[in-house]
Amino acid sequence: MSAMASVAPPVEPYYQPCGDEVAIFEQCHARQLAIMLKGPTGCGKTRFVEHMAWRLKRPLITISCHDDLSASDLVGRFLIGHQGTHWAEGPLTRAVREGAICYLDEVVEARQDTVVVLHPLTDHRRILPLDKIGEILEASPHFQLVVSYNPGYQRILKDLKPSTRQRFVALDFDFPPAEREIAIVIHEGATDYATAHALVTLAHRLRALQDRGLAEVPSTRLLIATARLITSGIAAQAACRAALISPLSDDAVLVAAMRDLVDLTFI
Amino acid sequence: MSAMASVAPPVEPYYQPCGDEVAIFEQCHARQLAIMLKGPTGCGKTRFVEHMAWRLKRPLITISCHDDLSASDLVGRFLIGHQGTHWAEGPLTRAVREGAICYLDEVVEARQDTVVVLHPLTDHRRILPLDKIGEILEASPHFQLVVSYNPGYQRILKDLKPSTRQRFVALDFDFPPAEREIAIVIHEGATDYATAHALVTLAHRLRALQDRGLAEVPSTRLLIATARLITSGIAAQAACRAALISPLSDDAVLVAAMRDLVDLTFI
Amino acid sequence: MSAMASVAPPVEPYYQPCGDEVAIFEQCHARQLAIMLKGPTGCGKTRFVEHMAWRLKRPLITISCHDDLSASDLVGRFLIGHQGTHWAEGPLTRAVREGAICYLDEVVEARQDTVVVLHPLTDHRRILPLDKIGEILEASPHFQLVVSYNPGYQRILKDLKPSTRQRFVALDFDFPPAEREIAIVIHEGATDYATAHALVTLAHRLRALQDRGLAEVPSTRLLIATARLITSGIAAQAACRAALISPLSDDAVLVAAMRDLVDLTFI
Amino acid sequence: MSAMASVAPPVEPYYQPCGDEVAIFEQCHARQLAIMLKGPTGCGKTRFVEHMAWRLKRPLITISCHDDLSASDLVGRFLIGHQGTHWAEGPLTRAVREGAICYLDEVVEARQDTVVVLHPLTDHRRILPLDKIGEILEASPHFQLVVSYNPGYQRILKDLKPSTRQRFVALDFDFPPAEREIAIVIHEGATDYATAHALVTLAHRLRALQDRGLAEVPSTRLLIATARLITSGIAAQAACRAALISPLSDDAVLVAAMRDLVDLTFI
Amino acid sequence: MSAMASVAPPVEPYYQPCGDEVAIFEQCHARQLAIMLKGPTGCGKTRFVEHMAWRLKRPLITISCHDDLSASDLVGRFLIGHQGTHWAEGPLTRAVREGAICYLDEVVEARQDTVVVLHPLTDHRRILPLDKIGEILEASPHFQLVVSYNPGYQRILKDLKPSTRQRFVALDFDFPPAEREIAIVIHEGATDYATAHALVTLAHRLRALQDRGLAEVPSTRLLIATARLITSGIAAQAACRAALISPLSDDAVLVAAMRDLVDLTFI
Amino acid sequence: MSAMASVAPPVEPYYQPCGDEVAIFEQCHARQLAIMLKGPTGCGKTRFVEHMAWRLKRPLITISCHDDLSASDLVGRFLIGHQGTHWAEGPLTRAVREGAICYLDEVVEARQDTVVVLHPLTDHRRILPLDKIGEILEASPHFQLVVSYNPGYQRILKDLKPSTRQRFVALDFDFPPAEREIAIVIHEGATDYATAHALVTLAHRLRALQDRGLAEVPSTRLLIATARLITSGIAAQAACRAALISPLSDDAVLVAAMRDLVDLTFI
Repeated sequence: MSAMASVAPPVEPYYQPCGDEVAIFEQCHARQLAIMLKGPTGCGKTRFVEHMAWRLKRPLITISCHDDLSASDLVGRFLIGHQGTHWAEGPLTRAVREGAICYLDEVVEARQDTVVVLHPLTDHRRILPLDKIGEILEASPHFQLVVSYNPGYQRILKDLKPSTRQRFVALDFDFPPAEREIAIVIHEGATDYATAHALVTLAHRLRALQDRGLAEVPSTRLLIATARLITSGIAAQAACRAALISPLSDDAVLVAAMRDLVDLTFI
Repeated sequence: MSAMASVAPPVEPYYQPCGDEVAIFEQCHARQLAIMLKGPTGCGKTRFVEHMAWRLKRPLITISCHDDLSASDLVGRFLIGHQGTHWAEGPLTRAVREGAICYLDEVVEARQDTVVVLHPLTDHRRILPLDKIGEILEASPHFQLVVSYNPGYQRILKDLKPSTRQRFVALDFDFPPAEREIAIVIHEGATDYATAHALVTLAHRLRALQDRGLAEVPSTRLLIATARLITSGIAAQAACRAALISPLSDDAVLVAAMRDLVDLTFI
Repeated sequence: MSAMASVAPPVEPYYQPCGDEVAIFEQCHARQLAIMLKGPTGCGKTRFVEHMAWRLKRPLITISCHDDLSASDLVGRFLIGHQGTHWAEGPLTRAVREGAICYLDEVVEARQDTVVVLHPLTDHRRILPLDKIGEILEASPHFQLVVSYNPGYQRILKDLKPSTRQRFVALDFDFPPAEREIAIVIHEGATDYATAHALVTLAHRLRALQDRGLAEVPSTRLLIATARLITSGIAAQAACRAALISPLSDDAVLVAAMRDLVDLTFI
Repeated sequence: MSAMASVAPPVEPYYQPCGDEVAIFEQCHARQLAIMLKGPTGCGKTRFVEHMAWRLKRPLITISCHDDLSASDLVGRFLIGHQGTHWAEGPLTRAVREGAICYLDEVVEARQDTVVVLHPLTDHRRILPLDKIGEILEASPHFQLVVSYNPGYQRILKDLKPSTRQRFVALDFDFPPAEREIAIVIHEGATDYATAHALVTLAHRLRALQDRGLAEVPSTRLLIATARLITSGIAAQAACRAALISPLSDDAVLVAAMRDLVDLTFI
Repeated sequence: MSAMASVAPPVEPYYQPCGDEVAIFEQCHARQLAIMLKGPTGCGKTRFVEHMAWRLKRPLITISCHDDLSASDLVGRFLIGHQGTHWAEGPLTRAVREGAICYLDEVVEARQDTVVVLHPLTDHRRILPLDKIGEILEASPHFQLVVSYNPGYQRILKDLKPSTRQRFVALDFDFPPAEREIAIVIHEGATDYATAHALVTLAHRLRALQDRGLAEVPSTRLLIATARLITSGIAAQAACRAALISPLSDDAVLVAAMRDLVDLTFI
Repeated sequence: MSAMASVAPPVEPYYQPCGDEVAIFEQCHARQLAIMLKGPTGCGKTRFVEHMAWRLKRPLITISCHDDLSASDLVGRFLIGHQGTHWAEGPLTRAVREGAICYLDEVVEARQDTVVVLHPLTDHRRILPLDKIGEILEASPHFQLVVSYNPGYQRILKDLKPSTRQRFVALDFDFPPAEREIAIVIHEGATDYATAHALVTLAHRLRALQDRGLAEVPSTRLLIATARLITSGIAAQAACRAALISPLSDDAVLVAAMRDLVDLTFI
C-alpha cells in the first residue's frame, strides 16, 4: 500500500495526441483555467490526463464521481480519535494545497453539492472555503482542475448546470482514426498488425450499429482486451464474442447481428 | 465460526463445463481482465466461480449485491473503539490486497456508488483508492474481479452503465443440455436416472411457459430440491408441487397449467 | 422478562394438519431445504411453525418483516459501550449458530438488503457472512429457515425476486374445511358447536364477497375473537359487527351487505 | 413536570356512552383482545379511552402517530451515557410491562415498521420482542392495546394492511345524536341551552355540506370552542366565524355558504 | 447575544387593529384555546402576535417552520457532553413550561411529525409528552399556541390535516384598508403622505394583477421598503422597480405591465 | 491557508457600474434592507458584491448554495472534542455578529430549511435564533444579506417562495453593453481591442441563438477565457471552439451552427 499519489507519474504514460489538445491543456494550466474533457467511454481521456500530469510534472489525484460522493468526501471531514475529533483532509483539498492535477472522472454523476464546491475554484477567486474548520484555502498556482464526462450517453435526470459548464475550457475527444487505433491496439494488446487491423475494422462496423439500438459503441479498451485474449491463444471468434460482443448488449437480435459481423471479419 | 475464507477451496467443487468458459477465465486471470457472468438464476454461475477458485488456487470472497450495499461495505470504514477510531477493512479491500477472487453476485442490484468503486480496478491502473485513509492500494497480480447478473430478469430502473460494462470480458451461461442436467440432478439430488430424466423433461416443458407469463423458469437448483424430496419418500407429484411449481408463481391459472404438466410427467 | 426463546416450545401448540405439510416440513428440515409458507392472513401459518418447532424440538425465533427492517437488525451490529464498541448478535445470526428455526413473517414486506442476506443460507453453501466482523458463520445442521407471505394481498411495488423464490420449497395454506374450522373455533374461542357452526357458515358467506371489493376475507382468527365476545355475554349480532364486520372494511355499502349476512345468520 | 402517567386517571373523565361500546371494551380487556376505534375527528374517541382507563383502573399511555414515529420511539433505544450505552425503555414497552392501556392515536399515520411491532402483541402470543437487547417481553395480563383512526378522511397512499386490521375488534364512533351533543356542549362549553341548541342545529346544517366539498365536517370540539368564546362575550356570529367556519376551509365559496348558515342560525 | 426571549416585549410594538382580532385573541388566551392566523405574506400577522405578547405581558417564542424542522427541534434532544448525554430543551418545551406565547410561522411548511406534537397541547389535555425523557409536561395556564399560514399561496402537496385544523380558533387577516395602510407606510417607511398615498394606490393596482398570473401580490412590507428607498433619495420609479416590482416576478411580460403601472403612478 | 475573510477586500476589485446599482446597494445597506441580485451566469454579480464590500469597507463571506446545504452549515453545529461537545459557529452566524456582508450565491438551489433561516434576519426583527444553543443573536447594524440567482435558467421544481422574495430589494443584472463588455475583455483577458471586439461581436451572435435551443448564452467570463487562450498563442478559431463553443452545448447541430459563426467572425 503506497501513500496517495503526491508525485508526478515517473514514467511517460503511452499517449497518441490527435490534435491541439496538448497545447490547449498546457496553456489552460499556465493561465489557470479549468478543463473539461468530453468524449465516449474508453477513448483515452484518463490516459491523456496521466500523460499531461507527467508532461507538466504535477502529481495526479483521480476521483471517480457517483451519486453518493459528498462534498465532505472531496473536502474533508472530522474523525473521532482518542483525543477528540481531528480534521481529515479530502483529496480535493490536498490537490488544491499541493498544486496537483485533480481529475474528477464522470463528473455528471456527482451530486450538486459536490459540483458546487468546485465553483470558487474555477473563477478569478481560486479559493476553496473549508467551512467546517472556518478557513479559506487559496489554490496553489499549480493546481489544475480537470473534469470529464460522456456527452453521448443519454441521461434523463442528470446534466451539468449551465452555470457550471461555463467555468471550463472544453476539449472534445473521440475514438482515434483507424491507423492510430491500430497502433494503439498493437502496443497495448501485444498483438500483430493483422489482428489489430481486423479488430479495428470490426469496431468500425460495430460502431455503425449505434443508430440501431446499441447503447454505447465498442471502445478502444474493448479492442485491447480482445487482442490480449487472442494473443493468449483463445480463438479469435470466441475472444470477440466474450470480450467485444457480450459486454455491449443483452439484446438477442443485436447480439446475433454483431456475431455475424465477427464471422464476416474472421472467416 | 471460521475466519473469512482466505484460502482456496480445499476440495474440487463439482462443476460440469459446457464450453470454453474455463479457458477464457484462466486467460482473463493471467491477463488481469475482469469477468462478467451473464445467465439465469440457478444455472451454475456461483458454482463455476467456486470451481475456478479451486482450479486457480485462489481464495474466494463472495458478496451478494443489493440496494443498500454501500461503497463502505466493500472498501471499509472507521469503527469507534476504546482507543478512538480504527480502520476496519472491507471484503473488497482484503481481496485486492490478498490476491483473492472477489465475486459480486447480482451486481446490477448494487447502487452506482458501489459499482463505481470497481472502475479503477478494471482498467490499466488496477488500483483501489482508499479515500478515507488517504491511501491507494495497488491490486495484487492475483486479484481477480468477477461479477454476475441475470439479463433475462427484466428491470425497469436498474441496469449497468455502458461505461461499466465495457470494463469486463463477458461469459454467457444458460441451463445445461438435457443429458448434462440429468447428470447434475443425479449427482446433487441423490436420485436415480429415471427420476432425474422425468424432472428434466418436466423442466423443459415448464421452461416453454416463459412466454405465457412465467417471470422466471425453473432452475437446475429447483430440480435438485425436488429430487431430494422424492428421495426422502415424498410422492413425486407432491414433491413437484411444493419444490418446483409453487415457488415459481402465485398465479392460479399458471399454477394449474404447471400442475397439469406435472401430472402428465408423473402419471 | 425472559431471555429470548432459545429452547423449543415446552407444550405442544394446538394445530390441526390438513395435508402432507408436516411430512414435507420434516423432510426439508432433514435435507436442509428452506421453506416458504404461502396463504391468507390468520389461516394458521404462525401456529404451524410453532407446532413444527415443538415437533422437531428446535428453538423458534420469529421476526416480523417490514420496510425498515435492515440487514443489521437481522445479523447484528456494533454498539458503543464503556470499553469501546462491542458486537451485538442479531436474531438470524443466533438462529444460524444455535440451530434454531428462524421464521420471517410476511417476508415480502422486507427490503431487498434484508432478503439478500438469506441467499448464501439457502443454497449449498449454508453460510452467513458477517461482513462487519470479517467472519463467515457456517449454519448449524439444525438451522431451518422459514418465510411466509400472503399471495392474495395485492401489492403493486413489492414482490419477492424470482432468484429469491427459487431458493425455497413452498407449502400452500388456505382456510381449513368447514368441520375443521368449527373444531378450531370451539377449541380456541371457548364456545359451543352451534355458535361455532353459525360463525363458520357466516365466514363462508363473507368470503364469497371477495370478488365484490373486500380487500381480504375474514380469517379464522376473527371468528375466534367473535366467539370469545359471544361467550363473554355480548349479543351475537353486536359481537359479529365489532369483531368480524367492522375490522374488514370502511366501505359503507360493503359493511351494510355484511351486516345483512350477519342478520341472516343470527336471526 | 410529572412522571409519565403510570396511574389510572384519578377523576372520572366526563363521557356520555352511546351504545354498547363500554361493555365491548370491558370484555375485550377481559379476553385480551386489541381494540380499534373508528370515527371522525373530535367525536370523543380520546375521551372514551380516558373514561375506560378510569373505569378499568389502568394507567393510560397515549401516543400520537405520525410518519416519523419509528419502532424505536415505541419500544426503546440505547442512549450514550458516561458509562457507555444504556437502554431507555419506550412508552409501548412500559405499557406492556406495567399492564397499562396503550392508545395509538391516528394509527394509519404511522409507518409500517411501527405498526408491525404491534403484531406479536395482538395474537395468541402477546409478546413484545426487544431485538435490541435480545429479550422477549411477555405482556402483563392487564395490558390493553387501543388504536384509532378516521375512516372518513381520504388518504391515497396510507391504509392499514388487512393483516393488521384483522388483529383488532372494531368500535364505530360517530357524532352523538342532537340532544346528547347539546348536553355535551352545555357541559364542556359552559354555555346555556339556547346557545348550545343553536350551535348543534348549525353543526347539523354544516355537516350536510360534506358532499359539497368540505374536507371534514365540524366536530363537537369546534362547537365547544365556539360556545366558550360566546360565553366570554364575543358576539355569536363573530365567534362562529372564528371558531367554527374559518378552521374548516380556505375556500371562499364554501366559507361564504357557511357564513350564510351562521347568519340564518343567529339572526 | 442575548438569552432567548423569555420576557414580554418591553415596548409596545406598533400595530393597527382592523376588527375584533384583539378581543378574540384575549378570550382564546383566557379560555386556553389555540389560535390560527390566516392571511397573505407581509400583512402584519407576525406584528400582531408581537403586539399581543406585549399586551398580555407574555414572553414570545417564534419558530419559522420548514420541511426539515423535526419534532426534536421543537421538543428537545440529547446532546453529548463530557459527562455523557444531557437533555437540551427545545423552544416549544420552554414555552409550554414558562407560559410563553409560542408562534409557529408558516405551519403548513412543517412535516407531519412536527405538527402532531402539537395535538395533545390543543385539546382538553394541554400536555406535552416528552417521550425521550419519559415525562409528561403539563402546560402552564399562560401557555398560548399560535400558528399561521397563507391560504392564498397554492400548494399541491402540503396542507394541514383536517384533524389538526379543528384544534384552532382561526383569525382571518388581509391587507389593511387604504387609509390605514397609508398610515402604516408613513409610520414605518418614514415618508410623507403624498408618497405613501401614491404607493398604496400603486399597490391596489398591482394587487388587481393576481388573476393575470402574479404568484403573490405586493405586501405592505414591500411598500415600506420602497418608501424607505425614496426617503433615502433614490428616484421613486427606480425605487419602485427595485423594491416593489422586481421582487414580485421574473416574467418579462408581467414585469413590463407592472412597470407601466409604476410610470402611470409616478409621472 | 488564511483565516476566513473577516476583513474587507484590501484592493478595489475591478467593476464597471451600469446603472444605479451602487447607489441602491448603499441605501439598502444604510436602511438595513436585504438585497437580491437577479441575472444570467457570469455577468458580474459576484464581482459587484466584492466591489461593494470594498466600497463599504465590510468583510465579505460568500456561500455557494446547493441542495445539501443545511441550516446547520449556515448557523453552526456542535462538534465532539476531547472535553465534550463545543459549538462551532457557521459562516452566517459570524457574518451576523461581525457585521459582514453575507453573500448566498444561487440561493434558489438551497433547501427550504436553509432559506427559512434567513426570514427573521430580513424583517424588522433582524435576529438569528440559535435554537441549538438557546440564544437569539441580534444582527450587527452593519450586517448585510445579499442573495443571487439566475431567473433565465428554467427550473421545474425549484423556486423561491413568494413569502421569501418579498423580503428583498431586487437588482436586475444583464450582460454589459458592447463597448463596456469590450473594455472588460481587454482588461481581464489581457488582449487587444481588435480581438475583444471580435469576441464580443461573436458573443452577440451566439446570444441570439437562445431561442434555438441553447440552454444558456455565453457569459463575459467565457469571452475572457477565450481571450486568454488567444493571447497565449492558441489560434483564434481553436480557442473559440474550446473555450466558447464546446462548454455551451453537446448538441451536434447547435455546435455546428456556432462553429459557423466562429468562422464567420475569424475568417
